[in-house]
Amino acid sequence: MLRIRLDLAYDGTAFAGWAIQPGLRTVQGLLEGALGVVLRAPVRVTVAGRTDSGVHAQGQVAHVDVEEGAWAALAGRSSRTSGDTLVARLGGLLPHDIVVRRAAPAAPGFDARFSALRRRYAYRIADDPARRDPMRRAEVLWHPRALDVDAMHVAARPLVGLQDFAAFSKPRPGATTIRTLEIFDWTRPTEGADAGLVVAVVQADAFCHHMVRALVGASLAVGEHRRPTDFPAVLLAAGVRDPGAGVAHACGLTLEEVSYPDDAELALRAGQTRNRRGRGWSGVELTG
Amino acid sequence: MLRIRLDLAYDGTAFAGWAIQPGLRTVQGLLEGALGVVLRAPVRVTVAGRTDSGVHAQGQVAHVDVEEGAWAALAGRSSRTSGDTLVARLGGLLPHDIVVRRAAPAAPGFDARFSALRRRYAYRIADDPARRDPMRRAEVLWHPRALDVDAMHVAARPLVGLQDFAAFSKPRPGATTIRTLEIFDWTRPTEGADAGLVVAVVQADAFCHHMVRALVGASLAVGEHRRPTDFPAVLLAAGVRDPGAGVAHACGLTLEEVSYPDDAELALRAGQTRNRRGRGWSGVELTG
Repeated sequence: MLRIRLDLAYDGTAFAGWAIQPGLRTVQGLLEGALGVVLRAPVRVTVAGRTDSGVHAQGQVAHVDVEEGAWAALAGRSSRTSGDTLVARLGGLLPHDIVVRRAAPAAPGFDARFSALRRRYAYRIADDPARRDPMRRAEVLWHPRALDVDAMHVAARPLVGLQDFAAFSKPRPGATTIRTLEIFDWTRPTEGADAGLVVAVVQADAFCHHMVRALVGASLAVGEHRRPTDFPAVLLAAGVRDPGAGVAHACGLTLEEVSYPDDAELALRAGQTRNRRGRGWSGVELTG
Repeated sequence: MLRIRLDLAYDGTAFAGWAIQPGLRTVQGLLEGALGVVLRAPVRVTVAGRTDSGVHAQGQVAHVDVEEGAWAALAGRSSRTSGDTLVARLGGLLPHDIVVRRAAPAAPGFDARFSALRRRYAYRIADDPARRDPMRRAEVLWHPRALDVDAMHVAARPLVGLQDFAAFSKPRPGATTIRTLEIFDWTRPTEGADAGLVVAVVQADAFCHHMVRALVGASLAVGEHRRPTDFPAVLLAAGVRDPGAGVAHACGLTLEEVSYPDDAELALRAGQTRNRRGRGWSGVELTG
Protein backbone atom coordinates (compact mmCIF):
# COMPACT_ATOMS: atom_id res chain seq x y z
CA MET A 1 0.00 0.00 0.00
CA LEU A 2 1.06 3.57 -0.71
CA ARG A 3 0.13 6.38 1.69
CA ILE A 4 -1.21 9.49 -0.07
CA ARG A 5 -1.33 12.89 1.63
CA LEU A 6 -4.36 15.01 0.73
CA ASP A 7 -4.44 18.79 1.28
CA LEU A 8 -7.99 20.07 1.29
CA ALA A 9 -10.30 22.96 2.07
CA TYR A 10 -14.02 23.12 2.70
CA ASP A 11 -16.86 25.45 3.54
CA GLY A 12 -18.23 23.83 6.70
CA THR A 13 -21.62 25.57 6.52
CA ALA A 14 -23.57 22.70 5.00
CA PHE A 15 -21.67 19.86 6.70
CA ALA A 16 -22.42 18.04 9.94
CA GLY A 17 -18.67 18.28 10.57
CA TRP A 18 -15.79 16.16 9.37
CA ALA A 19 -16.53 12.77 10.91
CA ILE A 20 -18.72 10.34 9.00
CA GLN A 21 -22.19 9.84 10.50
CA PRO A 22 -24.98 7.74 9.01
CA GLY A 23 -27.58 9.84 7.20
CA LEU A 24 -25.69 13.12 7.65
CA ARG A 25 -23.72 15.17 5.10
CA THR A 26 -20.13 15.02 6.32
CA VAL A 27 -16.80 15.93 4.69
CA GLN A 28 -15.36 12.49 5.43
CA GLY A 29 -18.42 10.77 4.00
CA LEU A 30 -18.34 12.67 0.70
CA LEU A 31 -14.56 12.47 0.39
CA GLU A 32 -14.42 8.72 1.02
CA GLY A 33 -17.28 8.24 -1.43
CA ALA A 34 -15.52 10.19 -4.19
CA LEU A 35 -12.17 8.50 -3.50
CA GLY A 36 -13.90 5.13 -3.67
CA VAL A 37 -15.25 5.97 -7.13
CA VAL A 38 -11.86 7.09 -8.48
CA LEU A 39 -9.83 4.31 -6.83
CA ARG A 40 -12.53 1.66 -7.44
CA ALA A 41 -12.21 0.35 -3.92
CA PRO A 42 -13.59 1.36 -0.52
CA VAL A 43 -11.16 3.60 1.36
CA ARG A 44 -10.82 5.05 4.84
CA VAL A 45 -9.40 8.56 5.31
CA THR A 46 -7.48 9.74 8.41
CA VAL A 47 -7.56 13.47 9.16
CA ALA A 48 -5.50 15.97 11.17
CA GLY A 49 -8.42 17.96 12.59
CA ARG A 50 -11.87 16.44 13.03
CA THR A 51 -13.72 19.74 12.70
CA ASP A 52 -17.17 20.20 14.21
CA SER A 53 -20.37 20.93 12.37
CA GLY A 54 -20.17 24.32 10.63
CA VAL A 55 -16.41 24.77 11.06
CA HIS A 56 -14.43 25.58 7.90
CA ALA A 57 -10.98 24.42 6.80
CA GLN A 58 -8.39 26.00 4.55
CA GLY A 59 -5.36 23.89 5.45
CA GLN A 60 -6.87 20.54 6.39
CA VAL A 61 -4.62 17.51 5.90
CA ALA A 62 -5.66 13.88 5.54
CA HIS A 63 -4.14 10.62 4.36
CA VAL A 64 -5.46 7.59 2.55
CA ASP A 65 -3.70 4.28 1.85
CA VAL A 66 -4.11 3.04 -1.74
CA GLU A 67 -2.97 0.02 -3.74
CA GLU A 68 0.24 0.85 -5.61
CA GLY A 69 -1.25 -0.50 -8.85
CA ALA A 70 -4.33 1.72 -8.53
CA TRP A 71 -2.08 4.72 -7.92
CA ALA A 72 0.11 3.99 -10.97
CA ALA A 73 -3.01 3.49 -13.11
CA LEU A 74 -4.12 7.06 -12.35
CA ALA A 75 -1.13 8.43 -14.26
CA GLY A 76 -1.64 6.00 -17.14
CA ARG A 77 -0.18 7.28 -20.38
CA SER A 78 -0.90 10.94 -19.68
CA SER A 79 1.78 13.47 -18.83
CA ARG A 80 -0.04 14.24 -15.59
CA THR A 81 1.06 12.72 -12.31
CA SER A 82 -1.25 10.35 -10.46
CA GLY A 83 -1.77 13.11 -7.86
CA ASP A 84 -2.84 15.65 -10.48
CA THR A 85 -5.23 13.13 -12.01
CA LEU A 86 -6.70 12.32 -8.60
CA VAL A 87 -7.19 16.04 -7.83
CA ALA A 88 -8.86 16.60 -11.22
CA ARG A 89 -11.14 13.54 -10.88
CA LEU A 90 -12.14 14.52 -7.32
CA GLY A 91 -12.78 18.08 -8.58
CA GLY A 92 -15.33 16.66 -10.99
CA LEU A 93 -16.99 14.42 -8.39
CA LEU A 94 -17.08 16.48 -5.21
CA PRO A 95 -19.58 19.29 -4.55
CA HIS A 96 -18.07 22.78 -4.75
CA ASP A 97 -17.91 23.23 -0.99
CA ILE A 98 -15.03 20.69 -0.77
CA VAL A 99 -11.80 21.17 -2.72
CA VAL A 100 -8.90 18.70 -2.67
CA ARG A 101 -6.03 20.99 -3.63
CA ARG A 102 -3.18 18.51 -3.70
CA ALA A 103 -2.64 14.75 -3.58
CA ALA A 104 0.84 13.20 -3.46
CA PRO A 105 2.65 10.25 -1.89
CA ALA A 106 3.45 11.01 1.75
CA ALA A 107 6.92 10.88 3.27
CA PRO A 108 7.79 7.63 5.08
CA GLY A 109 6.28 7.57 8.55
CA PHE A 110 3.67 10.26 7.79
CA ASP A 111 0.32 10.02 9.55
CA ALA A 112 -2.05 12.97 9.00
CA ARG A 113 -3.31 12.70 12.57
CA PHE A 114 -0.46 11.40 14.72
CA SER A 115 2.43 13.16 12.96
CA ALA A 116 0.84 16.60 13.30
CA LEU A 117 2.87 18.88 15.58
CA ARG A 118 0.30 21.65 15.88
CA ARG A 119 -2.97 23.00 14.52
CA ARG A 120 -3.67 26.68 13.88
CA TYR A 121 -7.21 28.05 13.79
CA ALA A 122 -8.53 31.54 13.06
CA TYR A 123 -11.77 33.02 14.34
CA ARG A 124 -13.06 36.04 12.40
CA ILE A 125 -15.60 38.62 13.53
CA ALA A 126 -16.90 41.77 11.80
CA ASP A 127 -18.09 44.36 14.33
CA ASP A 128 -18.21 47.37 11.98
CA PRO A 129 -20.73 47.65 9.11
CA ALA A 130 -18.11 49.47 7.02
CA ARG A 131 -15.96 46.29 7.14
CA ARG A 132 -18.77 43.78 6.74
CA ASP A 133 -18.54 41.72 3.57
CA PRO A 134 -21.62 39.88 2.33
CA MET A 135 -19.34 37.55 0.30
CA ARG A 136 -17.67 36.35 3.52
CA ARG A 137 -20.76 36.04 5.69
CA ALA A 138 -20.30 32.24 5.87
CA GLU A 139 -16.85 32.55 7.48
CA VAL A 140 -16.96 35.85 9.38
CA LEU A 141 -19.29 36.20 12.38
CA TRP A 142 -21.31 39.43 12.27
CA HIS A 143 -21.37 41.16 15.65
CA PRO A 144 -23.44 44.37 15.48
CA ARG A 145 -21.69 46.14 18.40
CA ALA A 146 -18.04 47.26 18.56
CA LEU A 147 -15.72 44.88 20.42
CA ASP A 148 -12.88 45.90 22.77
CA VAL A 149 -10.09 43.97 21.03
CA ASP A 150 -7.39 45.18 23.41
CA ALA A 151 -9.29 43.79 26.39
CA MET A 152 -9.82 40.50 24.55
CA HIS A 153 -6.11 40.24 23.83
CA VAL A 154 -5.13 40.99 27.44
CA ALA A 155 -7.67 38.44 28.66
CA ALA A 156 -6.25 35.77 26.36
CA ARG A 157 -2.63 36.12 27.56
CA PRO A 158 -2.83 34.01 30.77
CA LEU A 159 -4.24 31.02 28.86
CA VAL A 160 -1.12 30.51 26.76
CA GLY A 161 1.08 27.62 27.85
CA LEU A 162 0.71 24.05 29.10
CA GLN A 163 -2.62 24.03 30.92
CA ASP A 164 -5.61 21.87 31.74
CA PHE A 165 -8.37 23.19 29.45
CA ALA A 166 -11.18 21.21 31.12
CA ALA A 167 -13.09 24.49 31.58
CA PHE A 168 -13.08 25.00 27.81
CA SER A 169 -13.80 21.44 26.71
CA LYS A 170 -16.82 19.29 26.10
CA PRO A 171 -16.10 16.32 28.34
CA ARG A 172 -15.11 13.09 26.63
CA PRO A 173 -14.63 10.03 28.84
CA GLY A 174 -11.00 8.97 29.20
CA ALA A 175 -9.59 11.89 27.19
CA THR A 176 -7.06 14.26 28.69
CA THR A 177 -7.80 18.00 28.57
CA ILE A 178 -4.17 19.05 29.02
CA ARG A 179 -2.88 20.92 25.99
CA THR A 180 -0.11 23.37 25.11
CA LEU A 181 -1.76 26.55 23.84
CA GLU A 182 1.05 28.12 21.82
CA ILE A 183 -0.71 31.20 20.40
CA PHE A 184 -3.92 32.94 21.45
CA ASP A 185 -3.85 36.45 19.96
CA TRP A 186 -6.72 38.85 19.28
CA THR A 187 -5.95 41.61 16.75
CA ARG A 188 -7.67 44.00 14.38
CA PRO A 189 -5.50 43.70 11.22
CA THR A 190 -4.93 46.95 9.34
CA GLU A 191 -4.19 45.37 5.98
CA GLY A 192 -4.79 42.22 3.97
CA ALA A 193 -8.00 40.28 3.43
CA ASP A 194 -8.97 40.60 7.13
CA ALA A 195 -8.39 44.37 7.42
CA GLY A 196 -10.77 45.89 9.96
CA LEU A 197 -12.04 42.53 11.25
CA VAL A 198 -11.50 41.21 14.77
CA VAL A 199 -9.37 38.08 14.38
CA ALA A 200 -8.15 35.45 16.82
CA VAL A 201 -5.19 33.25 15.97
CA VAL A 202 -5.31 30.14 18.13
CA GLN A 203 -2.57 27.54 17.89
CA ALA A 204 -1.93 24.46 20.02
CA ASP A 205 -0.34 21.03 19.81
CA ALA A 206 -3.90 19.73 19.71
CA PHE A 207 -7.35 20.87 20.79
CA CYS A 208 -10.08 19.40 22.96
CA HIS A 209 -13.62 19.16 21.66
CA HIS A 210 -15.22 22.67 21.36
CA MET A 211 -12.06 24.23 22.85
CA VAL A 212 -11.48 27.04 20.33
CA ARG A 213 -15.12 28.06 20.31
CA ALA A 214 -15.23 28.06 24.14
CA LEU A 215 -12.08 30.23 24.25
CA VAL A 216 -13.69 32.62 21.74
CA GLY A 217 -16.95 32.63 23.68
CA ALA A 218 -15.14 33.72 26.88
CA SER A 219 -13.24 36.36 24.87
CA LEU A 220 -16.49 37.79 23.44
CA ALA A 221 -17.86 38.26 26.96
CA VAL A 222 -14.78 40.37 27.72
CA GLY A 223 -14.89 42.22 24.41
CA GLU A 224 -18.52 43.21 25.03
CA HIS A 225 -17.63 44.31 28.61
CA ARG A 226 -20.09 41.78 30.02
CA ARG A 227 -17.24 40.20 32.01
CA PRO A 228 -13.97 41.49 33.47
CA THR A 229 -10.65 40.97 31.72
CA ASP A 230 -9.66 38.12 34.03
CA PHE A 231 -12.79 36.10 33.13
CA PRO A 232 -11.05 33.53 30.86
CA ALA A 233 -8.24 33.02 33.41
CA VAL A 234 -10.77 32.56 36.25
CA LEU A 235 -12.64 29.98 34.16
CA LEU A 236 -9.39 28.16 33.41
CA ALA A 237 -8.44 28.06 37.10
CA ALA A 238 -11.90 26.75 38.09
CA GLY A 239 -11.18 23.77 35.89
CA VAL A 240 -14.81 22.87 35.21
CA ARG A 241 -17.15 23.88 32.43
CA ASP A 242 -19.23 26.93 33.39
CA PRO A 243 -22.71 26.47 31.89
CA GLY A 244 -23.02 30.27 31.73
CA ALA A 245 -19.88 30.65 29.61
CA GLY A 246 -20.79 30.74 25.96
CA VAL A 247 -19.44 28.74 23.04
CA ALA A 248 -19.02 30.95 19.97
CA HIS A 249 -20.92 30.13 16.78
CA ALA A 250 -19.05 27.70 14.50
CA CYS A 251 -19.34 29.92 11.42
CA GLY A 252 -16.43 32.24 12.35
CA LEU A 253 -14.00 29.35 12.85
CA THR A 254 -11.53 28.07 10.25
CA LEU A 255 -8.79 25.46 10.55
CA GLU A 256 -5.99 27.38 8.85
CA GLU A 257 -2.94 25.15 8.99
CA VAL A 258 -1.56 21.87 10.30
CA SER A 259 2.21 21.64 10.83
CA TYR A 260 4.32 18.50 10.43
CA PRO A 261 7.98 17.65 11.05
CA ASP A 262 10.29 17.53 8.05
CA ASP A 263 10.73 14.19 6.29
CA ALA A 264 13.83 13.01 8.23
CA GLU A 265 12.18 13.78 11.57
CA LEU A 266 8.97 12.03 10.43
CA ALA A 267 10.82 8.79 9.72
CA LEU A 268 12.61 8.99 13.09
CA ARG A 269 9.41 9.70 15.02
CA ALA A 270 7.57 6.90 13.24
CA GLY A 271 10.20 4.42 14.46
CA GLN A 272 9.93 5.73 18.02
CA THR A 273 6.12 5.56 17.94
CA ARG A 274 6.22 1.94 16.82
CA ASN A 275 8.56 1.14 19.71
CA ARG A 276 6.44 3.03 22.24
CA ARG A 277 3.27 1.43 20.95
CA GLY A 278 4.91 -1.95 21.45
CA ARG A 279 5.26 -0.97 25.12
CA GLY A 280 1.58 -0.03 25.39
CA TRP A 281 1.78 3.70 24.56
CA SER A 282 -1.54 4.70 23.15
CA GLY A 283 -0.89 8.06 21.57
CA VAL A 284 -2.35 11.45 22.34
CA GLU A 285 -5.97 12.39 21.79
CA LEU A 286 -5.70 14.86 18.97
CA THR A 287 -9.13 16.26 18.18
CA GLY A 288 -9.64 19.59 16.41
CA MET B 1 -35.90 66.70 0.87
CA LEU B 2 -32.39 65.57 1.77
CA ARG B 3 -30.38 63.33 -0.57
CA ILE B 4 -28.66 60.45 1.21
CA ARG B 5 -25.78 58.54 -0.35
CA LEU B 6 -25.73 54.81 0.43
CA ASP B 7 -22.60 52.68 0.01
CA LEU B 8 -23.48 49.02 -0.20
CA ALA B 9 -22.29 45.52 -1.03
CA TYR B 10 -24.15 42.36 -1.92
CA ASP B 11 -23.71 38.74 -2.87
CA GLY B 12 -25.59 38.61 -6.17
CA THR B 13 -26.01 34.82 -6.14
CA ALA B 14 -29.58 34.72 -4.88
CA PHE B 15 -30.79 37.93 -6.56
CA ALA B 16 -32.48 38.44 -9.91
CA GLY B 17 -30.17 41.46 -10.27
CA TRP B 18 -30.45 44.99 -8.96
CA ALA B 19 -33.56 46.29 -10.66
CA ILE B 20 -36.92 45.74 -9.01
CA GLN B 21 -39.13 43.18 -10.77
CA PRO B 22 -42.52 41.97 -9.57
CA GLY B 23 -42.33 38.58 -7.86
CA LEU B 24 -38.53 38.35 -8.04
CA ARG B 25 -35.93 38.76 -5.29
CA THR B 26 -33.97 41.88 -6.25
CA VAL B 27 -31.53 44.09 -4.37
CA GLN B 28 -33.54 47.22 -5.14
CA GLY B 29 -36.76 45.56 -4.00
CA LEU B 30 -35.36 44.45 -0.63
CA LEU B 31 -33.47 47.71 -0.07
CA GLU B 32 -36.46 49.92 -0.84
CA GLY B 33 -38.62 47.70 1.38
CA ALA B 34 -36.21 48.00 4.34
CA LEU B 35 -35.74 51.75 3.82
CA GLY B 36 -39.51 52.16 3.72
CA VAL B 37 -39.79 50.44 7.11
CA VAL B 38 -37.09 52.59 8.74
CA LEU B 39 -38.18 55.88 7.14
CA ARG B 40 -41.94 55.08 7.46
CA ALA B 41 -42.58 56.19 3.90
CA PRO B 42 -42.25 54.62 0.47
CA VAL B 43 -38.92 55.48 -1.14
CA ARG B 44 -37.27 55.08 -4.52
CA VAL B 45 -33.54 54.36 -4.76
CA THR B 46 -31.29 55.40 -7.67
CA VAL B 47 -28.18 53.31 -8.26
CA ALA B 48 -24.83 53.71 -10.03
CA GLY B 49 -24.68 50.25 -11.57
CA ARG B 50 -27.81 48.24 -12.32
CA THR B 51 -26.09 44.85 -11.98
CA ASP B 52 -27.49 41.77 -13.72
CA SER B 53 -28.77 38.63 -12.08
CA GLY B 54 -25.96 36.87 -10.20
CA VAL B 55 -23.49 39.76 -10.35
CA HIS B 56 -21.95 40.85 -7.02
CA ALA B 57 -21.10 44.32 -5.74
CA GLN B 58 -18.52 45.52 -3.24
CA GLY B 59 -18.56 49.25 -4.01
CA GLN B 60 -22.12 49.87 -5.19
CA VAL B 61 -23.43 53.40 -4.65
CA ALA B 62 -27.06 54.52 -4.51
CA HIS B 63 -29.01 57.54 -3.36
CA VAL B 64 -32.38 58.06 -1.78
CA ASP B 65 -34.22 61.32 -1.07
CA VAL B 66 -35.74 61.52 2.42
CA GLU B 67 -37.78 64.06 4.38
CA GLU B 68 -35.47 66.19 6.51
CA GLY B 69 -37.64 65.57 9.56
CA ALA B 70 -37.46 61.81 9.12
CA TRP B 71 -33.67 62.05 8.79
CA ALA B 72 -33.31 64.16 11.95
CA ALA B 73 -35.58 61.75 13.85
CA LEU B 74 -33.15 58.88 13.14
CA ALA B 75 -30.51 60.55 15.32
CA GLY B 76 -33.03 61.37 18.05
CA ARG B 77 -31.43 61.75 21.44
CA SER B 78 -28.71 59.16 20.85
CA SER B 79 -25.07 60.03 20.31
CA ARG B 80 -25.19 58.22 16.96
CA THR B 81 -25.59 60.11 13.72
CA SER B 82 -28.70 59.55 11.60
CA GLY B 83 -26.51 57.71 9.09
CA ASP B 84 -25.15 55.29 11.72
CA THR B 85 -28.67 54.64 12.98
CA LEU B 86 -29.92 53.99 9.45
CA VAL B 87 -27.03 51.57 8.80
CA ALA B 88 -27.73 49.73 12.08
CA ARG B 89 -31.50 49.53 11.45
CA LEU B 90 -30.98 48.29 7.87
CA GLY B 91 -28.47 45.74 9.20
CA GLY B 92 -31.22 44.33 11.39
CA LEU B 93 -33.81 44.27 8.59
CA LEU B 94 -31.91 43.19 5.49
CA PRO B 95 -30.90 39.58 4.78
CA HIS B 96 -27.18 38.90 5.22
CA ASP B 97 -26.45 38.92 1.49
CA ILE B 98 -26.96 42.72 1.39
CA VAL B 99 -24.92 45.08 3.57
CA VAL B 100 -25.38 48.86 3.64
CA ARG B 101 -21.97 49.95 4.88
CA ARG B 102 -22.48 53.70 5.06
CA ALA B 103 -25.31 56.22 4.83
CA ALA B 104 -24.68 59.99 4.90
CA PRO B 105 -26.04 63.19 3.34
CA ALA B 106 -24.70 63.55 -0.21
CA ALA B 107 -22.80 66.57 -1.48
CA PRO B 108 -24.92 69.18 -3.35
CA GLY B 109 -25.54 68.07 -6.92
CA PHE B 110 -24.78 64.39 -6.25
CA ASP B 111 -26.70 61.78 -8.24
CA ALA B 112 -25.58 58.16 -7.75
CA ARG B 113 -26.23 57.39 -11.43
CA PHE B 114 -25.61 60.58 -13.40
CA SER B 115 -22.69 61.94 -11.37
CA ALA B 116 -20.66 58.72 -11.70
CA LEU B 117 -17.49 59.24 -13.73
CA ARG B 118 -16.58 55.58 -14.11
CA ARG B 119 -17.34 52.08 -12.93
CA ARG B 120 -14.73 49.43 -12.20
CA TYR B 121 -15.54 45.72 -12.30
CA ALA B 122 -13.40 42.67 -11.52
CA TYR B 123 -13.85 39.20 -12.97
CA ARG B 124 -12.18 36.38 -11.01
CA ILE B 125 -11.33 32.90 -12.22
CA ALA B 126 -9.55 30.01 -10.46
CA ASP B 127 -7.87 27.69 -12.97
CA ASP B 128 -5.61 25.84 -10.53
CA PRO B 129 -6.96 23.48 -7.84
CA ALA B 130 -4.15 24.58 -5.50
CA ARG B 131 -5.61 28.12 -5.58
CA ARG B 132 -9.27 27.15 -5.48
CA ASP B 133 -11.08 28.36 -2.38
CA PRO B 134 -14.41 26.76 -1.44
CA MET B 135 -15.22 29.86 0.66
CA ARG B 136 -15.07 32.05 -2.47
CA ARG B 137 -16.89 29.73 -4.87
CA ALA B 138 -19.78 32.21 -5.16
CA GLU B 139 -17.52 34.98 -6.51
CA VAL B 140 -14.69 33.13 -8.28
CA LEU B 141 -15.46 31.11 -11.42
CA TRP B 142 -13.90 27.65 -11.33
CA HIS B 143 -12.23 26.76 -14.65
CA PRO B 144 -10.71 23.28 -14.50
CA ARG B 145 -8.06 23.83 -17.20
CA ALA B 146 -5.12 26.28 -17.08
CA LEU B 147 -5.71 29.60 -18.87
CA ASP B 148 -3.14 31.49 -20.96
CA VAL B 149 -3.34 34.81 -19.12
CA ASP B 150 -0.67 36.49 -21.27
CA ALA B 151 -2.67 35.77 -24.42
CA MET B 152 -5.84 37.07 -22.75
CA HIS B 153 -4.09 40.29 -21.78
CA VAL B 154 -2.65 40.82 -25.28
CA ALA B 155 -6.09 40.15 -26.78
CA ALA B 156 -7.70 42.71 -24.48
CA ARG B 157 -5.34 45.58 -25.42
CA PRO B 158 -6.98 46.70 -28.71
CA LEU B 159 -10.38 47.11 -27.01
CA VAL B 160 -9.25 49.91 -24.72
CA GLY B 161 -10.37 53.39 -25.76
CA LEU B 162 -13.45 55.10 -27.17
CA GLN B 163 -15.17 52.39 -29.20
CA ASP B 164 -18.54 51.13 -30.34
CA PHE B 165 -19.12 48.02 -28.19
CA ALA B 166 -22.20 46.83 -30.13
CA ALA B 167 -20.49 43.44 -30.61
CA PHE B 168 -20.32 43.03 -26.82
CA SER B 169 -23.75 44.35 -25.92
CA LYS B 170 -27.24 42.99 -25.59
CA PRO B 171 -29.16 45.30 -27.93
CA ARG B 172 -31.42 47.85 -26.27
CA PRO B 173 -33.55 50.04 -28.57
CA GLY B 174 -32.41 53.64 -28.72
CA ALA B 175 -29.36 53.13 -26.47
CA THR B 176 -25.88 53.99 -27.69
CA THR B 177 -23.19 51.31 -27.47
CA ILE B 178 -20.30 53.78 -27.65
CA ARG B 179 -18.24 53.73 -24.46
CA THR B 180 -14.75 54.63 -23.28
CA LEU B 181 -13.11 51.46 -22.02
CA GLU B 182 -10.40 52.86 -19.75
CA ILE B 183 -8.89 49.65 -18.35
CA PHE B 184 -9.12 46.06 -19.53
CA ASP B 185 -6.27 44.11 -17.91
CA TRP B 186 -5.87 40.38 -17.33
CA THR B 187 -3.34 39.41 -14.65
CA ARG B 188 -2.45 36.57 -12.30
CA PRO B 189 -1.72 38.43 -9.03
CA THR B 190 1.16 37.02 -7.00
CA GLU B 191 0.00 38.39 -3.65
CA GLY B 192 -3.08 39.55 -1.81
CA ALA B 193 -6.49 37.91 -1.57
CA ASP B 194 -6.51 37.08 -5.30
CA ALA B 195 -3.03 35.50 -5.41
CA GLY B 196 -2.90 32.77 -8.05
CA LEU B 197 -6.28 33.61 -9.55
CA VAL B 198 -6.85 34.93 -13.07
CA VAL B 199 -8.32 38.41 -12.65
CA ALA B 200 -9.68 40.97 -15.11
CA VAL B 201 -9.94 44.62 -14.13
CA VAL B 202 -12.46 46.32 -16.42
CA GLN B 203 -13.13 50.03 -16.09
CA ALA B 204 -15.20 52.33 -18.30
CA ASP B 205 -17.21 55.54 -18.11
CA ALA B 206 -20.25 53.29 -18.31
CA PHE B 207 -21.11 49.82 -19.57
CA CYS B 208 -23.67 48.44 -21.98
CA HIS B 209 -25.90 45.59 -20.96
CA HIS B 210 -23.89 42.30 -20.64
CA MET B 211 -20.75 44.12 -21.83
CA VAL B 212 -18.27 42.97 -19.16
CA ARG B 213 -19.42 39.36 -19.37
CA ALA B 214 -19.20 39.42 -23.19
CA LEU B 215 -15.66 40.85 -22.98
CA VAL B 216 -14.72 38.10 -20.51
CA GLY B 217 -16.36 35.44 -22.68
CA ALA B 218 -14.24 36.46 -25.68
CA SER B 219 -11.14 36.51 -23.45
CA LEU B 220 -11.83 32.98 -22.20
CA ALA B 221 -11.94 31.69 -25.79
CA VAL B 222 -8.43 33.14 -26.25
CA GLY B 223 -7.19 31.90 -22.87
CA GLU B 224 -8.29 28.35 -23.73
CA HIS B 225 -6.65 28.61 -27.20
CA ARG B 226 -10.00 27.99 -28.87
CA ARG B 227 -9.63 31.33 -30.71
CA PRO B 228 -6.65 33.40 -31.90
CA THR B 229 -5.39 36.39 -29.94
CA ASP B 230 -7.07 38.89 -32.29
CA PHE B 231 -10.53 37.36 -31.67
CA PRO B 232 -11.89 40.12 -29.40
CA ALA B 233 -10.59 42.85 -31.77
CA VAL B 234 -12.15 41.11 -34.77
CA LEU B 235 -15.47 40.88 -32.93
CA LEU B 236 -15.26 44.58 -32.03
CA ALA B 237 -14.57 45.56 -35.65
CA ALA B 238 -17.48 43.44 -36.94
CA GLY B 239 -19.73 45.60 -34.78
CA VAL B 240 -22.51 43.04 -34.41
CA ARG B 241 -23.15 40.45 -31.76
CA ASP B 242 -21.68 37.06 -32.76
CA PRO B 243 -24.10 34.36 -31.52
CA GLY B 244 -21.10 31.99 -31.20
CA ALA B 245 -19.20 34.31 -28.85
CA GLY B 246 -19.92 33.37 -25.27
CA VAL B 247 -21.04 35.50 -22.36
CA ALA B 248 -19.18 34.52 -19.18
CA HIS B 249 -21.11 33.26 -16.15
CA ALA B 250 -22.26 36.08 -13.84
CA CYS B 251 -20.80 34.50 -10.72
CA GLY B 252 -17.20 35.68 -11.35
CA LEU B 253 -18.25 39.31 -11.79
CA THR B 254 -18.13 41.99 -9.08
CA LEU B 255 -18.78 45.72 -9.29
CA GLU B 256 -15.76 46.91 -7.31
CA GLU B 257 -15.92 50.71 -7.33
CA VAL B 258 -17.82 53.71 -8.67
CA SER B 259 -15.90 57.00 -8.95
CA TYR B 260 -17.38 60.47 -8.51
CA PRO B 261 -16.03 64.01 -8.91
CA ASP B 262 -15.08 65.89 -5.77
CA ASP B 263 -17.72 68.04 -4.10
CA ALA B 264 -16.86 71.34 -5.84
CA GLU B 265 -16.90 69.68 -9.26
CA LEU B 266 -20.20 67.93 -8.42
CA ALA B 267 -21.93 71.23 -7.71
CA LEU B 268 -20.54 72.73 -10.92
CA ARG B 269 -21.59 69.75 -13.06
CA ALA B 270 -25.06 69.71 -11.52
CA GLY B 271 -25.58 73.32 -12.65
CA GLN B 272 -24.36 72.50 -16.17
CA THR B 273 -26.59 69.43 -16.39
CA ARG B 274 -29.64 71.47 -15.43
CA ASN B 275 -28.78 73.97 -18.17
CA ARG B 276 -28.19 71.26 -20.78
CA ARG B 277 -31.40 69.48 -19.82
CA GLY B 278 -33.21 72.77 -20.36
CA ARG B 279 -31.88 72.63 -23.93
CA GLY B 280 -33.12 69.07 -24.47
CA TRP B 281 -30.02 67.10 -23.46
CA SER B 282 -31.17 63.68 -22.31
CA GLY B 283 -28.16 62.28 -20.47
CA VAL B 284 -26.07 59.20 -21.20
CA GLU B 285 -27.34 55.65 -20.83
CA LEU B 286 -25.30 54.39 -17.91
CA THR B 287 -26.12 50.74 -17.28
CA GLY B 288 -23.71 48.42 -15.48
